[in-house]
Amino acid sequence: MATYPEYPPDQSDEEQKYLLTSLKDWSIAHGLAVRPTTTYVSAEIDPSGALATTAPVTLFPSLFPRVCFEQAKSVAQDYNELYSAIASDEEWLKQTVEELVDIDDFIAQLWKVHLAVKQQGYVQPLNLGLFRSDYMVHTDPANAQSRPCVKQVEFNTIASSFGGLSTQVSALHKYLFTVGAYPEAPLSVISDAALPESTSVPGLAMGMAKAHEAYGPSKDGLATCVLFLVQDPERNVFDQRHVEYVLNKNYGVKTFRLPFGKVLNDTKLDADRKLVYSPPHAPSKQFEVTLVYFRAGYSPAEYQNQRDWDGRLQIERSAAIKCPSILTQLAGTKKVQQVLATPHSPHLKRFLPDEARAAELLKTFAPIYPMDKSEAGEEARKLAQDPETAVRYVLKPQREGGGNNVYRKAIPRFLKDTPETHWPAHILMEMIEPPAQSNVIFRNGELQKGGVICELGIYGACLWRDEDGKGKREILENFEAGYLLRTKGCGSEEGGVAAGFGSVDSACLIDVD
Amino acid sequence: MATYPEYPPDQSDEEQKYLLTSLKDWSIAHGLAVRPTTTYVSAEIDPSGALATTAPVTLFPSLFPRVCFEQAKSVAQDYNELYSAIASDEEWLKQTVEELVDIDDFIAQLWKVHLAVKQQGYVQPLNLGLFRSDYMVHTDPANAQSRPCVKQVEFNTIASSFGGLSTQVSALHKYLFTVGAYPEAPLSVISDAALPESTSVPGLAMGMAKAHEAYGPSKDGLATCVLFLVQDPERNVFDQRHVEYVLNKNYGVKTFRLPFGKVLNDTKLDADRKLVYSPPHAPSKQFEVTLVYFRAGYSPAEYQNQRDWDGRLQIERSAAIKCPSILTQLAGTKKVQQVLATPHSPHLKRFLPDEARAAELLKTFAPIYPMDKSEAGEEARKLAQDPETAVRYVLKPQREGGGNNVYRKAIPRFLKDTPETHWPAHILMEMIEPPAQSNVIFRNGELQKGGVICELGIYGACLWRDEDGKGKREILENFEAGYLLRTKGCGSEEGGVAAGFGSVDSACLIDVD
Repeated sequence: MATYPEYPPDQSDEEQKYLLTSLKDWSIAHGLAVRPTTTYVSAEIDPSGALATTAPVTLFPSLFPRVCFEQAKSVAQDYNELYSAIASDEEWLKQTVEELVDIDDFIAQLWKVHLAVKQQGYVQPLNLGLFRSDYMVHTDPANAQSRPCVKQVEFNTIASSFGGLSTQVSALHKYLFTVGAYPEAPLSVISDAALPESTSVPGLAMGMAKAHEAYGPSKDGLATCVLFLVQDPERNVFDQRHVEYVLNKNYGVKTFRLPFGKVLNDTKLDADRKLVYSPPHAPSKQFEVTLVYFRAGYSPAEYQNQRDWDGRLQIERSAAIKCPSILTQLAGTKKVQQVLATPHSPHLKRFLPDEARAAELLKTFAPIYPMDKSEAGEEARKLAQDPETAVRYVLKPQREGGGNNVYRKAIPRFLKDTPETHWPAHILMEMIEPPAQSNVIFRNGELQKGGVICELGIYGACLWRDEDGKGKREILENFEAGYLLRTKGCGSEEGGVAAGFGSVDSACLIDVD
Repeated sequence: MATYPEYPPDQSDEEQKYLLTSLKDWSIAHGLAVRPTTTYVSAEIDPSGALATTAPVTLFPSLFPRVCFEQAKSVAQDYNELYSAIASDEEWLKQTVEELVDIDDFIAQLWKVHLAVKQQGYVQPLNLGLFRSDYMVHTDPANAQSRPCVKQVEFNTIASSFGGLSTQVSALHKYLFTVGAYPEAPLSVISDAALPESTSVPGLAMGMAKAHEAYGPSKDGLATCVLFLVQDPERNVFDQRHVEYVLNKNYGVKTFRLPFGKVLNDTKLDADRKLVYSPPHAPSKQFEVTLVYFRAGYSPAEYQNQRDWDGRLQIERSAAIKCPSILTQLAGTKKVQQVLATPHSPHLKRFLPDEARAAELLKTFAPIYPMDKSEAGEEARKLAQDPETAVRYVLKPQREGGGNNVYRKAIPRFLKDTPETHWPAHILMEMIEPPAQSNVIFRNGELQKGGVICELGIYGACLWRDEDGKGKREILENFEAGYLLRTKGCGSEEGGVAAGFGSVDSACLIDVD
């Protein structure tokens, strides 16, 4: 079983001071930043919200096997193809979703929005996916000789975050190496060639620009724009802004940030269902929206009332390209991941007929079981209720957004407290246990050192034309769009840096046997 | 007399909200930032100093007559030539300085350092000046038909600040215009063509790179570096970092920040007086210093004890290029400015024999009088003591650093309280009274609206070889290096944004008759 070298290098106080000063200054100078939490800086100190702080980051780039990194990148386009196929196959999705509608009200509501639009007919065949496939390094515990590979943790089809900051953090670590803040080989494995740049900012911006361009100019002679649909307030705003600024600067695309709750206030549909946006600061102006980029609306908690659902419906009905559409969002449910990754599943072949390519994808699946009454489901229920076997698993809700996973020995208790009818709202997944390593995380002005777990996210951009909603589609753009490493202390078992647990990181690639 | 159009444009609450949100996000994303003051964020909230905030900026680019802007830029190279000539004429400087040594202890001490090095012989003939000539718009109050012109407020030869932020603020205002945060013509004079980009970051970095290159590689095979001599702590650190990062990235120059008080700790002179730097975080490493860039050491308060002076002496004795040398620093005293700008002074011709070019410089001088016993001095003493005439003047100390100017009606009282022997430590200058305008300043999270005064700074870079200390020199590089607009409320009469009074700004050029 692969193990990592001793890492990170030991540092004297002076070395750490130099590293940290260099990091703090570079990060602010380059917008690798977040707005501070109210526990860090209370609202009365900064009522106008002008303060910012270094985004939670690792002091060192975490170790990651080069072979695993390459593997994850090599399947990015196939994942784009797979998920665009799923999102274009309404009949298949319907079957999958229908198993959830009784137990997951959020998915049921999303499906209802889709059905409402379907009845009127969709007016926009173009779809943009800005996906992020998340992996951890896995070595087969039963086979000490096996090479490490990546296993998929989840596939995100909506609001994949940190694409803005990940380009910056890979540049930060490269900078720190260049200015001598890290010991060089042979004292350390860090080298210029070991630090891959993340192209997520230009990659995601290019994806949006391609969609904007494919939409074309307004037939009514309006100025066009891309809407960033956002939460408000948003501490992680710079992550989004970096992509927006490149979209403005490199492609000349006008952009606006629209809070999720304001859709009905600031947009309307014209007779052709063109989405027309009037900014609150210039209510007499009208912009035709080419693309709605969702950085909000992925979590049930954001839908407070019918008006929020009506806003979502308005966007879905519109002629704007959606990133993502509701079908694409639903394709990213854990239920779909589970259906694909259930051993001997026939589904992968349906969407990706090329056997060689499907086989490569398959290698990245961790065994996932349904918690329903199927044969595989019955097996899962046994594994999950038995405290001895449960410790190797994680129980995940099928919903998006994270934050509700149940781990290992907590699973049997959780199931006891949960009505059995609700069990199928979850999937059971074997824990991926990556080689141990340590790092130092700088967050909220504090250093935390210790064991860490890394998740590699590979961004993908895919623009496709859905001809008939029956699986037939034309792919116009399909490319890998950079990477993210997210690193959290072993103590906490949730990812999500902005939610308050982890940090953004970059990869220090190492060759393992 | 020229007046400005109504400005800035009125804004609704929604318009200002959009402008401010756009400004706050862009500024942090691009490092247009400062560390917050301790009155804004107390030290216990942020002991590690990880917070930052938008640098004090104007919401709108301030109005500036295009003809004045062009005038100030057009004389930048001549000012470089003039001040490099002064700094190379030790005999002349000596006369000027000797009038001050009895009354200005700081200048006396600097001169002593120079003499000590002179006795041993200087070992580095190359000099780098990164200058900033500061101007205000002036119209002759006696002549309503006169065109506006710029008059020099002061000429900075050491530690000219805000070159890092001024490039960013001109880009910020351009961005705000591009995203529609400003009303366009005819509602406002703001247009793309009216917003000149400031090239101060690349300009200053290129100046340093040229000096570094001219120094050449280490003959002892050491790695070379540029030292940024800095105050510690430094709230305005990002201003300096932006220049440093471009120097690193575009020219591959290694840089280190050395606190002023640590010169003797971290540097030494070798047998050839090469300046050798060992970073505290890597004490076994040695770098040969090609250039010492002073962002500290300009103010008497920084020299706390003999050790600080010994550190300054060590740098001056060394073979490193100084930016600036002590002679160059002394060339920037207000006494020199006064000697040049005293009506009918013969000195300008000595340093700039070309009459046409000297005439252009002369146009930028405001009348300046000595406060000594010369004929012009006696006239000045009368003007300054009489409350009726004093109101048109400002009394300035000859020292660098700002903060001790005495304005208008306060002058007679100040002179009464000051021993007459100390009067010659000041110069008397006619106030330059620019056309009135208003703006909104955003600083420390608060908006302040009202009448403002703008100072235009033009950066210049000059690299020269001083052949003999007697005025003979060879100029290797001489170029204009971007601009800065600094804007303060009319209520306060001091500049210096970092010191807590004003803001960084950019120019909105207008055509005036």
